[in-house]
Amino acid sequence: MVIWNPSSWLPQNHIRRVSTSHQTQLRRLHQKQMAGSIGMMLRDLNLETVESLPEDFDPTTLINDPLPPIANDASHINGVKSINGKEKPREIVLGRNVHTTCLEVTEPDADDEVTGEREAYMASVLARYRKSLLERTKHHLGYPYNLDFDYGALSQLQHFSINNLGDPFIESNYGVHSRQFEVGVLDWFARLWELEKNEYWGYITNCGTEGNLHGILVGREVFPDGILYASCESHYSIFKAARMYRMDCEKVNTLVSGEIDCEDFKAKLCLHKDKPAIINVNIGTTVKGAVDDLDLVIKTLEETGFTHDRFYIHCDGALFGLMMPFVKLAPKVSFKKPIGSVSVSGHKFVGCPMPCGVQITRLEHINALSRNVEYLASRDATIMGSRNGHAPLFLWYTLNRKGYRGFQKEVQKCLRNAHYLKGRLTSAGIGAMLNELSSTVVFERPQDEEFTRKWQLACQGSIAHVVVMPNITIDKLDDFVNELIEKRAIWYENGKLQSPCVASDIGKSNCLCVLHK
Amino acid sequence: MVIWNPSSWLPQNHIRRVSTSHQTQLRRLHQKQMAGSIGMMLRDLNLETVESLPEDFDPTTLINDPLPPIANDASHINGVKSINGKEKPREIVLGRNVHTTCLEVTEPDADDEVTGEREAYMASVLARYRKSLLERTKHHLGYPYNLDFDYGALSQLQHFSINNLGDPFIESNYGVHSRQFEVGVLDWFARLWELEKNEYWGYITNCGTEGNLHGILVGREVFPDGILYASCESHYSIFKAARMYRMDCEKVNTLVSGEIDCEDFKAKLCLHKDKPAIINVNIGTTVKGAVDDLDLVIKTLEETGFTHDRFYIHCDGALFGLMMPFVKLAPKVSFKKPIGSVSVSGHKFVGCPMPCGVQITRLEHINALSRNVEYLASRDATIMGSRNGHAPLFLWYTLNRKGYRGFQKEVQKCLRNAHYLKGRLTSAGIGAMLNELSSTVVFERPQDEEFTRKWQLACQGSIAHVVVMPNITIDKLDDFVNELIEKRAIWYENGKLQSPCVASDIGKSNCLCVLHK
Repeated sequence: MVIWNPSSWLPQNHIRRVSTSHQTQLRRLHQKQMAGSIGMMLRDLNLETVESLPEDFDPTTLINDPLPPIANDASHINGVKSINGKEKPREIVLGRNVHTTCLEVTEPDADDEVTGEREAYMASVLARYRKSLLERTKHHLGYPYNLDFDYGALSQLQHFSINNLGDPFIESNYGVHSRQFEVGVLDWFARLWELEKNEYWGYITNCGTEGNLHGILVGREVFPDGILYASCESHYSIFKAARMYRMDCEKVNTLVSGEIDCEDFKAKLCLHKDKPAIINVNIGTTVKGAVDDLDLVIKTLEETGFTHDRFYIHCDGALFGLMMPFVKLAPKVSFKKPIGSVSVSGHKFVGCPMPCGVQITRLEHINALSRNVEYLASRDATIMGSRNGHAPLFLWYTLNRKGYRGFQKEVQKCLRNAHYLKGRLTSAGIGAMLNELSSTVVFERPQDEEFTRKWQLACQGSIAHVVVMPNITIDKLDDFVNELIEKRAIWYENGKLQSPCVASDIGKSNCLCVLHK
Repeated sequence: MVIWNPSSWLPQNHIRRVSTSHQTQLRRLHQKQMAGSIGMMLRDLNLETVESLPEDFDPTTLINDPLPPIANDASHINGVKSINGKEKPREIVLGRNVHTTCLEVTEPDADDEVTGEREAYMASVLARYRKSLLERTKHHLGYPYNLDFDYGALSQLQHFSINNLGDPFIESNYGVHSRQFEVGVLDWFARLWELEKNEYWGYITNCGTEGNLHGILVGREVFPDGILYASCESHYSIFKAARMYRMDCEKVNTLVSGEIDCEDFKAKLCLHKDKPAIINVNIGTTVKGAVDDLDLVIKTLEETGFTHDRFYIHCDGALFGLMMPFVKLAPKVSFKKPIGSVSVSGHKFVGCPMPCGVQITRLEHINALSRNVEYLASRDATIMGSRNGHAPLFLWYTLNRKGYRGFQKEVQKCLRNAHYLKGRLTSAGIGAMLNELSSTVVFERPQDEEFTRKWQLACQGSIAHVVVMPNITIDKLDDFVNELIEKRAIWYENGKLQSPCVASDIGKSNCLCVLHK
């Protein structure tokens, strides 16, 4: 039997804050315990008796009332009216703190466990919330999220704290992980984008932004003095990266379709011929779903005198990175071309309860990066440290069930339905644009915030869009268009008022205003 | 009735890649459809008939076989033996791609839906995986994750794609979010760290690293030419931030306890008196659980001539940020002191299926940051764009159930059990260190990788640690210590061989090697 030696209670290490009286207390505790046995100690330390701590048990003495004072109510700050007041039109103003809606966390009453009141209250909050989610999910059209998934088979795993901390290819001692699933998913994507299994490195990210942050960082580490080029319709995370990483950045103009304008790209390249180029190529822009012409971007670089060892291309494939491979006419996203990295979101075309993404890059680039990282004693080449281990399970499950062929079918369905939507809009006299390789239908911004919010349309300036995802059926599109037509009759007083011109956003040929129809 | 106008099928916008033959195809399709009605169109476009697409349906023609060629098997690359071969001791080598374990994603067979074979296969994989997670969860000691949670009440929400994209205080049009829960959780933490409701800004992050990346970024935006100071025992994400953000960084020495050495800090500060200071303060270091003396850090800054408008302090409270407020002797983490931000992990002391964290900063700092961000047309002041909407639900649920008082009890239990563990180790002649305010017990690294892996101990150099979390019972600690004692008898041949000296890691007074006992 192992004998318990209570002398170990005395802090022997260097702790500067141990006061003499504290040491005396510990000694008294020690003396009390000398008389005891392991059995007694265990009883003393038992979980059930944790409330009956000896008074002089220190340094772990706890403060008497742990409740911090309540701060002032701030629901009326910043000049915005409270929840129940009449709401102002929302503005995007950063750096504010407005409690438009807040489900306060409250301290349990002492008798809550007996009365069960707290459990009942929380269950009712969650039930109401679930109902609102059902309604909101039903009317969603504007964001590129596939809301159609059933992960019931995985709900048994929600009880585990699954964490793929650090690198997917370096196991940590933490055993509750899902790396075996993650690597399977990464292999699938590497194959999709034509990079050999032993030549890629990648990981499952928290969202598209993390993929972009990683891709641009790898580019910067490969070319520390490189200039970042990105079209002005690139996702805002690209410009966030430029600022975070202190990189010089050239914004390149776009065509009306939303694609990068390679004439302007060439002109911008010529300004910095002495510096390597790091280029973000959009495989589907956020607003118009425009696919930058990767081949033309590469040709432009070559023509301007940039050899392959002087540029790094990151492909932001947030949504379309998973759709393009299944469309014949699409410029192929492939590592057989001189590209450095591709990222795609997992919660978009695949569908997932929480945001996630996939980032694939060349192993050689990570070798370059990680030499630097090792010097800093970092354990990983990812942006985040702890990483959600459930996301790989969701992706693995869907990829296995659908396969490449299943995705092909869904891409087909989305492109057809997007064409259907554009057809219905234009036939109703509503100007609309649909890029050839896209399922994003762009049209005039509805005049009514409530309508926009009901259908959860994403808006920018005077345009809005619907992204046709696998869960968007023809029936839903019909409901939407019919309601839009009804509403427009009210907004424009049955044609007495003119609908706005959106030619500058979607092109004259797509605009159906008085001037352009 | 709205008349369907198939002319809208013709792409009218500027698309450069449309070939003439493609346009001809579209026109043919158009002519075919002219004869039809909406009813026919709907049938044609019906989900069920998606396979029977007309041959000339273009631009959405899909490639015939979407399966990319299979890449080479890479399980033997990089000189590491395969799964079944004898394993080498693992090294932390970044930039590799080793498929030690991989659950391949395979393409479904055509008849899978009929035979149900695929479903059966996947169910068996998941059942085996669940069993391994149960076993791994049972034997986990080394990482600061509370594995004891029950979110059964929330499983009904797993069917929704919940995404709090962007800022918690700026609603997006995407309706399937949980901002009302997120703001409730943030309020709770702002109250804990004593910042008024209308003076804080914050968000729920993906992990502790994201909190640190955000805190250091805010510091850099407040002081663009500031020098980053962090003790060498800071989490590696701090040094990752320095590299990412291109900041000058001074590593400060630590005391043997792991705390920042303020003598050295003062010396380093004096080297850069002309530049503002951005300081990372550890509220619990990763390896030794040492709590930097926040008050001494502030005093050192003041004594060196740094006024409050010339420094920014970020508190990395990954684990202890939520424990310290409940310990009387602990230096208080409070925004009443001149600190800029505090971050804490949500999956650590609270416990959560996936990693998450909370970041709280002063609203005034975010105002400074967001002025710059707006110029870049970014929609948010967070690091990530899309954000996991389930994490706020988990945190809201636990905070509501436990309350400040519940956490206080758990902190009490952890500190007691950590003292118990240290006592059992030293009484068995195993040198161990436990910082006063910590539940992290540090001791000699076990000689046997298998043992380390079984108990999932985190190791660094010649030391290992156990972090006593709420789910670690006395029984589990007893099992662990008893097995360690048995194993040591084998490793050190019942005392014939000497156990290693760890005085340089945990201090002479804690070491129990031949020389120091």
